[in-house]
Amino acid sequence: AIFNQACALLGPKNKYQGLHMVVTAGPTQEPLDPVRYFTNHSSGKMGFAIARAAAEQGADVTLVSGPVNLTPPPGVELIRVTTAEEMYRAVMDAYPKADLVIKAAAVADYRPATVHGQKMKKGGEMAIPLVRNPDILAELGKKKENQILVGFAAETENLQENATGKLDRKNLDMIVANDLTMAGAGFKADTNIVRLYFRDGTEKELPLMTKDEVARQILHEATQLLTKQ
Amino acid sequence: AIFNQACALLGPKNKYQGLHMVVTAGPTQEPLDPVRYFTNHSSGKMGFAIARAAAEQGADVTLVSGPVNLTPPPGVELIRVTTAEEMYRAVMDAYPKADLVIKAAAVADYRPATVHGQKMKKGGEMAIPLVRNPDILAELGKKKENQILVGFAAETENLQENATGKLDRKNLDMIVANDLTMAGAGFKADTNIVRLYFRDGTEKELPLMTKDEVARQILHEATQLLTKQ
Repeated sequence: AIFNQACALLGPKNKYQGLHMVVTAGPTQEPLDPVRYFTNHSSGKMGFAIARAAAEQGADVTLVSGPVNLTPPPGVELIRVTTAEEMYRAVMDAYPKADLVIKAAAVADYRPATVHGQKMKKGGEMAIPLVRNPDILAELGKKKENQILVGFAAETENLQENATGKLDRKNLDMIVANDLTMAGAGFKADTNIVRLYFRDGTEKELPLMTKDEVARQILHEATQLLTKQ
Repeated sequence: AIFNQACALLGPKNKYQGLHMVVTAGPTQEPLDPVRYFTNHSSGKMGFAIARAAAEQGADVTLVSGPVNLTPPPGVELIRVTTAEEMYRAVMDAYPKADLVIKAAAVADYRPATVHGQKMKKGGEMAIPLVRNPDILAELGKKKENQILVGFAAETENLQENATGKLDRKNLDMIVANDLTMAGAGFKADTNIVRLYFRDGTEKELPLMTKDEVARQILHEATQLLTKQ
Protein backbone atom coordinates (compact mmCIF):
# COMPACT_ATOMS: atom_id res chain seq x y z
CA ALA A 1 0.00 0.00 0.00
CA ILE A 2 2.85 2.35 0.85
CA PHE A 3 4.47 1.37 -2.42
CA ASN A 4 1.29 2.16 -4.38
CA GLN A 5 1.04 5.62 -2.86
CA ALA A 6 4.71 6.27 -3.57
CA CYS A 7 4.23 5.22 -7.20
CA ALA A 8 1.37 7.62 -7.64
CA LEU A 9 3.45 10.49 -6.31
CA LEU A 10 6.69 9.88 -8.16
CA GLY A 11 7.73 10.28 -11.78
CA PRO A 12 9.26 7.54 -14.00
CA LYS A 13 12.85 8.37 -12.98
CA ASN A 14 12.27 7.17 -9.44
CA LYS A 15 9.39 4.91 -10.27
CA TYR A 16 10.55 2.11 -7.98
CA GLN A 17 11.36 4.36 -5.02
CA GLY A 18 10.08 2.83 -1.79
CA LEU A 19 10.10 -0.68 -3.27
CA HIS A 20 12.03 -3.26 -1.26
CA MET A 21 13.34 -6.01 -3.48
CA VAL A 22 15.33 -9.18 -3.01
CA VAL A 23 17.02 -10.55 -6.13
CA THR A 24 19.04 -13.76 -6.26
CA ALA A 25 21.66 -14.50 -8.91
CA GLY A 26 24.30 -16.93 -10.07
CA PRO A 27 24.94 -20.58 -9.36
CA THR A 28 25.62 -22.19 -6.01
CA GLN A 29 28.69 -24.31 -5.37
CA GLU A 30 28.22 -27.51 -3.37
CA PRO A 31 31.55 -28.76 -2.00
CA LEU A 32 32.62 -32.39 -1.97
CA ASP A 33 36.00 -31.67 -0.34
CA PRO A 34 38.27 -28.58 -0.02
CA VAL A 35 39.04 -28.71 -3.76
CA ARG A 36 36.10 -30.26 -5.61
CA TYR A 37 32.51 -29.11 -5.98
CA PHE A 38 29.28 -29.41 -7.93
CA THR A 39 27.92 -26.36 -9.69
CA ASN A 40 26.09 -25.21 -12.83
CA HIS A 41 26.56 -22.85 -15.77
CA SER A 42 24.62 -19.87 -14.39
CA SER A 43 26.63 -16.69 -15.03
CA GLY A 44 24.57 -14.41 -12.76
CA LYS A 45 24.03 -11.95 -15.63
CA MET A 46 20.21 -12.06 -15.54
CA GLY A 47 19.96 -11.48 -11.77
CA PHE A 48 22.59 -8.74 -11.81
CA ALA A 49 20.78 -7.02 -14.71
CA ILE A 50 17.51 -7.06 -12.72
CA ALA A 51 19.20 -5.70 -9.59
CA ARG A 52 20.90 -2.94 -11.60
CA ALA A 53 17.73 -1.91 -13.46
CA ALA A 54 15.71 -1.79 -10.22
CA ALA A 55 18.34 0.24 -8.32
CA GLU A 56 18.66 2.68 -11.23
CA GLN A 57 14.98 3.43 -10.88
CA GLY A 58 15.11 3.95 -7.14
CA ALA A 59 14.34 0.51 -5.65
CA ASP A 60 16.02 -0.63 -2.44
CA VAL A 61 17.67 -3.85 -3.64
CA THR A 62 19.28 -6.73 -1.75
CA LEU A 63 21.13 -8.96 -4.22
CA VAL A 64 22.03 -12.41 -2.92
CA SER A 65 24.53 -13.95 -5.30
CA GLY A 66 26.46 -17.16 -5.66
CA PRO A 67 30.05 -17.05 -7.00
CA VAL A 68 30.14 -15.02 -10.24
CA ASN A 69 32.61 -12.85 -12.15
CA LEU A 70 30.50 -9.70 -12.38
CA THR A 71 30.84 -6.13 -11.16
CA PRO A 72 28.36 -5.35 -8.36
CA PRO A 73 25.69 -2.88 -9.54
CA PRO A 74 26.01 0.53 -7.84
CA GLY A 75 23.63 1.23 -4.96
CA VAL A 76 22.75 -2.43 -4.41
CA GLU A 77 23.33 -4.32 -1.16
CA LEU A 78 25.28 -7.38 -2.36
CA ILE A 79 25.37 -10.48 -0.15
CA ARG A 80 27.81 -13.07 -1.48
CA VAL A 81 27.12 -16.72 -0.72
CA THR A 82 28.56 -20.03 -1.91
CA THR A 83 26.17 -22.88 -1.12
CA ALA A 84 22.40 -23.31 -1.43
CA GLU A 85 22.13 -23.43 2.37
CA GLU A 86 23.89 -20.07 2.69
CA MET A 87 21.62 -18.61 0.00
CA TYR A 88 18.57 -19.99 1.81
CA ARG A 89 19.54 -18.26 5.06
CA ALA A 90 20.37 -14.93 3.37
CA VAL A 91 17.09 -14.88 1.42
CA MET A 92 14.97 -15.87 4.42
CA ASP A 93 16.58 -13.09 6.49
CA ALA A 94 15.73 -10.47 3.88
CA TYR A 95 12.23 -11.82 3.06
CA PRO A 96 10.04 -10.23 5.77
CA LYS A 97 10.75 -6.65 4.64
CA ALA A 98 10.56 -7.43 0.90
CA ASP A 99 7.72 -6.31 -1.41
CA LEU A 100 9.05 -8.25 -4.37
CA VAL A 101 11.38 -11.24 -4.66
CA ILE A 102 12.89 -12.23 -8.01
CA LYS A 103 14.74 -15.52 -7.79
CA ALA A 104 17.07 -15.64 -10.79
CA ALA A 105 19.71 -17.83 -9.10
CA ALA A 106 20.26 -21.37 -10.31
CA VAL A 107 20.37 -23.08 -6.93
CA ALA A 108 21.72 -26.64 -6.81
CA ASP A 109 18.86 -29.00 -5.96
CA TYR A 110 21.28 -31.46 -4.37
CA ARG A 111 24.56 -31.39 -2.49
CA PRO A 112 27.04 -34.15 -1.61
CA ALA A 113 25.78 -35.89 1.54
CA THR A 114 29.26 -35.69 3.09
CA VAL A 115 31.74 -32.84 2.79
CA HIS A 116 35.21 -34.31 3.27
CA GLY A 117 37.61 -32.23 5.37
CA GLN A 118 40.66 -33.34 3.37
CA LYS A 119 41.18 -33.71 -0.36
CA MET A 120 39.83 -37.15 -1.29
CA LYS A 121 42.25 -39.68 -2.72
CA LYS A 122 41.50 -41.75 -5.80
CA GLY A 123 39.99 -45.18 -5.27
CA GLY A 124 38.25 -47.50 -7.71
CA GLU A 125 34.72 -46.98 -8.97
CA MET A 126 32.70 -44.64 -6.82
CA ALA A 127 29.40 -42.87 -6.46
CA ILE A 128 28.66 -39.66 -4.66
CA PRO A 129 25.58 -39.85 -2.43
CA LEU A 130 23.58 -36.64 -2.64
CA VAL A 131 20.97 -35.05 -0.39
CA ARG A 132 18.32 -32.49 -1.27
CA ASN A 133 19.05 -28.83 -0.64
CA PRO A 134 16.36 -26.63 0.89
CA ASP A 135 13.90 -25.51 -1.83
CA ILE A 136 14.19 -21.75 -1.39
CA LEU A 137 11.42 -20.82 -3.81
CA ALA A 138 8.95 -23.31 -2.32
CA GLU A 139 9.71 -21.99 1.18
CA LEU A 140 9.16 -18.42 0.02
CA GLY A 141 5.86 -19.51 -1.54
CA LYS A 142 4.70 -21.12 1.72
CA LYS A 143 5.66 -18.12 3.86
CA LYS A 144 4.26 -15.54 1.42
CA GLU A 145 2.23 -12.70 2.94
CA ASN A 146 1.95 -9.67 0.66
CA GLN A 147 5.09 -10.30 -1.36
CA ILE A 148 5.10 -10.77 -5.09
CA LEU A 149 7.18 -13.80 -5.90
CA VAL A 150 8.85 -14.28 -9.29
CA GLY A 151 10.75 -17.43 -10.24
CA PHE A 152 12.72 -18.64 -13.22
CA ALA A 153 12.54 -21.88 -15.16
CA ALA A 154 15.54 -22.63 -17.34
CA GLU A 155 14.64 -25.75 -19.27
CA THR A 156 15.93 -27.89 -22.10
CA GLU A 157 12.55 -29.48 -22.91
CA ASN A 158 8.79 -29.19 -22.15
CA LEU A 159 9.17 -25.50 -21.36
CA GLN A 160 5.53 -24.54 -20.77
CA GLU A 161 4.67 -27.65 -18.78
CA ASN A 162 7.74 -27.40 -16.54
CA ALA A 163 7.34 -23.66 -16.04
CA THR A 164 3.64 -23.56 -15.22
CA GLY A 165 4.00 -26.64 -13.01
CA LYS A 166 6.64 -24.81 -10.99
CA LEU A 167 4.49 -21.64 -10.86
CA ASP A 168 1.60 -23.58 -9.27
CA ARG A 169 3.60 -25.89 -7.05
CA LYS A 170 5.67 -23.11 -5.50
CA ASN A 171 2.90 -20.52 -5.16
CA LEU A 172 4.57 -17.98 -7.46
CA ASP A 173 2.94 -14.92 -9.03
CA MET A 174 4.95 -15.03 -12.22
CA ILE A 175 7.58 -17.28 -13.75
CA VAL A 176 10.18 -16.35 -16.35
CA ALA A 177 10.79 -19.33 -18.61
CA ASN A 178 13.61 -19.76 -21.04
CA ASP A 179 14.64 -22.60 -23.28
CA LEU A 180 18.36 -23.17 -22.82
CA THR A 181 18.62 -24.88 -26.20
CA MET A 182 17.64 -21.75 -28.18
CA ALA A 183 20.38 -19.61 -29.73
CA GLY A 184 20.56 -16.27 -27.89
CA ALA A 185 18.99 -17.66 -24.71
CA GLY A 186 20.44 -19.12 -21.57
CA PHE A 187 23.21 -18.78 -19.05
CA LYS A 188 26.32 -17.47 -20.77
CA ALA A 189 24.70 -15.17 -23.35
CA ASP A 190 24.18 -11.43 -22.95
CA THR A 191 20.78 -11.84 -24.56
CA ASN A 192 17.75 -13.88 -23.59
CA ILE A 193 14.47 -15.06 -25.06
CA VAL A 194 11.86 -15.54 -22.37
CA ARG A 195 8.21 -16.29 -21.91
CA LEU A 196 6.35 -14.97 -18.86
CA TYR A 197 3.61 -17.08 -17.26
CA PHE A 198 1.23 -15.56 -14.71
CA ARG A 199 -0.84 -17.02 -11.90
CA ASP A 200 -4.07 -16.04 -13.68
CA GLY A 201 -3.16 -18.33 -16.61
CA THR A 202 -2.08 -15.60 -19.00
CA GLU A 203 1.29 -15.62 -20.70
CA LYS A 204 3.48 -13.17 -22.57
CA GLU A 205 6.25 -13.96 -25.04
CA LEU A 206 9.14 -11.51 -25.30
CA PRO A 207 11.33 -11.39 -28.41
CA LEU A 208 15.14 -11.81 -28.36
CA MET A 209 16.52 -8.87 -26.38
CA THR A 210 19.50 -8.03 -24.18
CA LYS A 211 19.39 -9.21 -20.58
CA ASP A 212 19.16 -5.52 -19.54
CA GLU A 213 15.99 -5.13 -21.63
CA VAL A 214 14.59 -8.42 -20.31
CA ALA A 215 15.33 -7.16 -16.78
CA ARG A 216 13.30 -3.98 -17.32
CA GLN A 217 10.38 -5.97 -18.77
CA ILE A 218 10.38 -8.39 -15.83
CA LEU A 219 10.43 -5.48 -13.38
CA HIS A 220 7.61 -3.74 -15.21
CA GLU A 221 5.39 -6.84 -15.14
CA ALA A 222 6.24 -7.73 -11.55
CA THR A 223 5.51 -4.26 -10.20
CA GLN A 224 2.23 -4.22 -12.15
CA LEU A 225 1.24 -7.27 -10.12
CA LEU A 226 2.19 -5.43 -6.95
CA THR A 227 -0.05 -2.46 -7.76
CA LYS A 228 -2.94 -4.84 -8.55
CA GLN A 229 -2.84 -6.37 -5.06
CA ALA B 1 70.53 -31.90 -28.01
CA ILE B 2 69.31 -29.16 -30.35
CA PHE B 3 68.01 -27.30 -27.32
CA ASN B 4 71.40 -27.57 -25.54
CA GLN B 5 73.25 -26.15 -28.53
CA ALA B 6 70.74 -23.32 -28.83
CA CYS B 7 71.17 -22.50 -25.11
CA ALA B 8 74.93 -22.27 -25.53
CA LEU B 9 74.56 -19.85 -28.43
CA LEU B 10 71.92 -17.53 -27.07
CA GLY B 11 71.92 -14.90 -24.35
CA PRO B 12 69.54 -14.78 -21.33
CA LYS B 13 66.89 -12.74 -23.19
CA ASN B 14 66.09 -15.64 -25.49
CA LYS B 15 67.31 -18.33 -23.19
CA TYR B 16 64.41 -20.67 -23.92
CA GLN B 17 64.51 -20.20 -27.70
CA GLY B 18 64.16 -23.54 -29.47
CA LEU B 19 62.44 -25.13 -26.46
CA HIS B 20 59.09 -26.76 -27.22
CA MET B 21 56.85 -26.75 -24.16
CA VAL B 22 53.40 -27.99 -23.31
CA VAL B 23 51.78 -26.40 -20.25
CA THR B 24 48.37 -27.35 -18.87
CA ALA B 25 46.29 -25.06 -16.67
CA GLY B 26 42.99 -24.61 -14.92
CA PRO B 27 40.29 -27.05 -13.81
CA THR B 28 38.30 -29.39 -15.97
CA GLN B 29 34.50 -29.41 -15.98
CA GLU B 30 32.77 -32.79 -16.01
CA PRO B 31 29.14 -32.45 -17.11
CA LEU B 32 26.24 -34.30 -15.52
CA ASP B 33 23.61 -32.75 -17.83
CA PRO B 34 23.44 -29.59 -20.02
CA VAL B 35 23.35 -27.40 -16.89
CA ARG B 36 25.19 -29.14 -14.06
CA TYR B 37 28.83 -30.18 -13.73
CA PHE B 38 31.61 -31.21 -11.38
CA THR B 39 34.72 -29.06 -11.15
CA ASN B 40 37.37 -27.76 -8.75
CA HIS B 41 38.79 -24.47 -7.50
CA SER B 42 41.81 -24.25 -9.82
CA SER B 43 42.07 -20.70 -11.20
CA GLY B 44 44.62 -21.46 -13.92
CA LYS B 45 46.93 -18.71 -12.61
CA MET B 46 49.96 -20.95 -11.99
CA GLY B 47 49.84 -22.58 -15.46
CA PHE B 48 49.24 -19.25 -17.22
CA ALA B 49 52.18 -17.70 -15.32
CA ILE B 50 54.47 -20.54 -16.44
CA ALA B 51 53.33 -20.25 -20.07
CA ARG B 52 53.82 -16.47 -20.02
CA ALA B 53 57.29 -16.64 -18.43
CA ALA B 54 58.43 -19.29 -20.90
CA ALA B 55 57.13 -17.42 -23.97
CA GLU B 56 58.70 -14.15 -22.78
CA GLN B 57 62.06 -15.89 -22.84
CA GLY B 58 61.62 -17.33 -26.31
CA ALA B 59 60.06 -20.79 -25.74
CA ASP B 60 57.52 -22.20 -28.17
CA VAL B 61 54.57 -22.82 -25.82
CA THR B 62 51.35 -24.76 -26.26
CA LEU B 63 49.03 -23.98 -23.35
CA VAL B 64 46.14 -26.43 -22.89
CA SER B 65 43.65 -24.89 -20.50
CA GLY B 66 40.34 -25.76 -18.92
CA PRO B 67 37.72 -23.01 -18.41
CA VAL B 68 39.33 -20.01 -16.68
CA ASN B 69 38.87 -16.23 -16.55
CA LEU B 70 42.37 -15.20 -17.56
CA THR B 71 43.88 -13.24 -20.45
CA PRO B 72 45.86 -15.50 -22.80
CA PRO B 73 49.61 -14.77 -22.59
CA PRO B 74 50.96 -13.16 -25.79
CA GLY B 75 52.80 -15.45 -28.19
CA VAL B 76 51.38 -18.64 -26.69
CA GLU B 77 49.31 -21.20 -28.62
CA LEU B 78 46.21 -21.55 -26.40
CA ILE B 79 44.03 -24.65 -26.75
CA ARG B 80 40.83 -24.35 -24.73
CA VAL B 81 39.22 -27.53 -23.45
CA THR B 82 36.41 -28.35 -21.03
CA THR B 83 36.64 -31.97 -19.89
CA ALA B 84 39.52 -34.21 -18.81
CA GLU B 85 39.02 -36.33 -21.93
CA GLU B 86 39.42 -33.26 -24.15
CA MET B 87 42.53 -32.23 -22.23
CA TYR B 88 43.92 -35.75 -22.57
CA ARG B 89 43.55 -35.66 -26.36
CA ALA B 90 45.03 -32.15 -26.72
CA VAL B 91 48.04 -32.98 -24.54
CA MET B 92 48.71 -36.31 -26.27
CA ASP B 93 48.59 -34.60 -29.68
CA ALA B 94 51.19 -32.03 -28.60
CA TYR B 95 53.41 -34.47 -26.66
CA PRO B 96 55.62 -35.99 -29.42
CA LYS B 97 57.23 -32.67 -30.34
CA ALA B 98 57.60 -31.40 -26.75
CA ASP B 99 60.91 -31.12 -24.87
CA LEU B 100 59.25 -30.20 -21.60
CA VAL B 101 55.73 -30.74 -20.23
CA ILE B 102 54.52 -28.91 -17.13
CA LYS B 103 51.15 -30.15 -15.98
CA ALA B 104 49.70 -27.45 -13.74
CA ALA B 105 46.04 -28.26 -14.53
CA ALA B 106 43.82 -29.71 -11.83
CA VAL B 107 42.21 -32.45 -13.88
CA ALA B 108 39.11 -34.13 -12.45
CA ASP B 109 39.98 -37.72 -11.52
CA TYR B 110 36.37 -38.80 -12.08
CA ARG B 111 33.43 -37.85 -14.25
CA PRO B 112 29.72 -38.75 -14.04
CA ALA B 113 29.25 -42.17 -15.65
CA THR B 114 26.29 -40.86 -17.64
CA VAL B 115 25.90 -37.43 -19.21
CA HIS B 116 22.18 -36.73 -19.47
CA GLY B 117 21.05 -35.05 -22.68
CA GLN B 118 18.28 -33.11 -20.94
CA LYS B 119 18.26 -31.21 -17.66
CA MET B 120 17.60 -33.79 -14.93
CA LYS B 121 14.45 -33.41 -12.85
CA LYS B 122 14.40 -33.67 -9.09
CA GLY B 123 13.66 -37.05 -7.58
CA GLY B 124 14.16 -38.36 -4.08
CA GLU B 125 17.55 -39.34 -2.68
CA MET B 126 20.12 -39.97 -5.32
CA ALA B 127 23.74 -40.82 -5.97
CA ILE B 128 25.84 -40.00 -8.97
CA PRO B 129 27.86 -42.94 -10.28
CA LEU B 130 31.32 -41.83 -11.36
CA VAL B 131 33.95 -43.34 -13.62
CA ARG B 132 37.68 -42.67 -13.72
CA ASN B 133 39.02 -40.16 -16.19
CA PRO B 134 42.19 -40.95 -18.14
CA ASP B 135 45.24 -40.21 -15.97
CA ILE B 136 47.04 -37.78 -18.26
CA LEU B 137 50.21 -37.51 -16.21
CA ALA B 138 50.57 -41.29 -15.82
CA GLU B 139 50.11 -41.73 -19.59
CA LEU B 140 52.74 -39.08 -20.29
CA GLY B 141 55.09 -40.88 -17.88
CA LYS B 142 54.56 -44.20 -19.67
CA LYS B 143 55.12 -42.73 -23.14
CA LYS B 144 58.09 -40.60 -22.13
CA GLU B 145 61.06 -40.60 -24.49
CA ASN B 146 63.38 -37.61 -24.01
CA GLN B 147 60.81 -35.28 -22.48
CA ILE B 148 61.18 -33.73 -19.06
CA LEU B 149 57.92 -34.18 -17.20
CA VAL B 150 56.86 -31.89 -14.36
CA GLY B 151 53.73 -32.46 -12.29
CA PHE B 152 51.95 -30.67 -9.47
CA ALA B 153 50.62 -31.96 -6.18
CA ALA B 154 48.13 -29.70 -4.43
CA GLU B 155 47.44 -31.32 -1.10
CA THR B 156 45.68 -30.63 2.17
CA GLU B 157 47.68 -33.18 4.20
CA ASN B 158 50.77 -35.45 4.04
CA LEU B 159 52.38 -33.17 1.46
CA GLN B 160 55.77 -34.87 1.08
CA GLU B 161 54.40 -38.40 1.07
CA ASN B 162 51.68 -37.63 -1.47
CA ALA B 163 54.01 -35.61 -3.70
CA THR B 164 56.94 -38.04 -3.82
CA GLY B 165 54.54 -40.98 -4.24
CA LYS B 166 53.07 -39.27 -7.31
CA LEU B 167 56.58 -38.44 -8.64
CA ASP B 168 57.58 -42.13 -8.56
CA ARG B 169 54.27 -43.65 -9.63
CA LYS B 170 53.89 -41.40 -12.68
CA ASN B 171 57.53 -41.41 -13.78
CA LEU B 172 57.98 -37.64 -13.37
CA ASP B 173 61.28 -35.76 -13.29
CA MET B 174 60.11 -33.12 -10.85
CA ILE B 175 56.98 -32.38 -8.85
CA VAL B 176 55.83 -29.03 -7.53
CA ALA B 177 54.04 -29.54 -4.23
CA ASN B 178 51.92 -27.04 -2.39
CA ASP B 179 49.89 -27.25 0.76
CA LEU B 180 46.46 -25.77 0.03
CA THR B 181 45.87 -25.09 3.71
CA MET B 182 48.74 -22.56 4.00
CA ALA B 183 47.98 -18.84 3.80
CA GLY B 184 49.39 -17.44 0.55
CA ALA B 185 49.34 -20.81 -1.21
CA GLY B 186 46.85 -22.55 -3.42
CA PHE B 187 44.35 -22.00 -6.16
CA LYS B 188 42.85 -18.56 -5.84
CA ALA B 189 45.87 -16.65 -4.54
CA ASP B 190 48.33 -14.65 -6.66
CA THR B 191 51.13 -16.02 -4.51
CA ASN B 192 52.28 -19.55 -3.82
CA ILE B 193 54.54 -21.45 -1.44
CA VAL B 194 55.94 -24.55 -3.08
CA ARG B 195 58.41 -27.32 -2.51
CA LEU B 196 60.14 -29.00 -5.44
CA TYR B 197 60.92 -32.73 -5.30
CA PHE B 198 63.26 -34.31 -7.84
CA ARG B 199 63.64 -37.82 -9.18
CA ASP B 200 67.11 -38.11 -7.63
CA GLY B 201 65.60 -37.68 -4.15
CA THR B 202 66.66 -34.07 -3.63
CA GLU B 203 64.18 -31.35 -2.73
CA LYS B 204 64.10 -27.58 -2.69
CA GLU B 205 61.81 -25.32 -0.68
CA LEU B 206 60.89 -21.94 -2.15
CA PRO B 207 59.70 -19.09 0.08
CA LEU B 208 56.38 -17.27 -0.37
CA MET B 209 56.55 -15.52 -3.75
CA THR B 210 54.24 -14.40 -6.54
CA LYS B 211 53.06 -17.03 -9.02
CA ASP B 212 55.12 -15.22 -11.68
CA GLU B 213 58.27 -15.70 -9.57
CA VAL B 214 57.36 -19.32 -8.82
CA ALA B 215 56.86 -19.83 -12.58
CA ARG B 216 60.38 -18.57 -13.36
CA GLN B 217 61.88 -20.81 -10.67
CA ILE B 218 60.04 -23.88 -11.98
CA LEU B 219 61.21 -23.12 -15.51
CA HIS B 220 64.77 -22.64 -14.35
CA GLU B 221 64.83 -25.97 -12.50
CA ALA B 222 63.03 -27.88 -15.27
CA THR B 223 65.35 -26.63 -18.02
CA GLN B 224 68.37 -27.48 -15.84
CA LEU B 225 67.12 -31.08 -15.90
CA LEU B 226 66.83 -30.88 -19.67
CA THR B 227 70.44 -29.75 -20.10
CA LYS B 228 71.60 -32.56 -17.75
CA GLN B 229 70.09 -35.24 -20.01
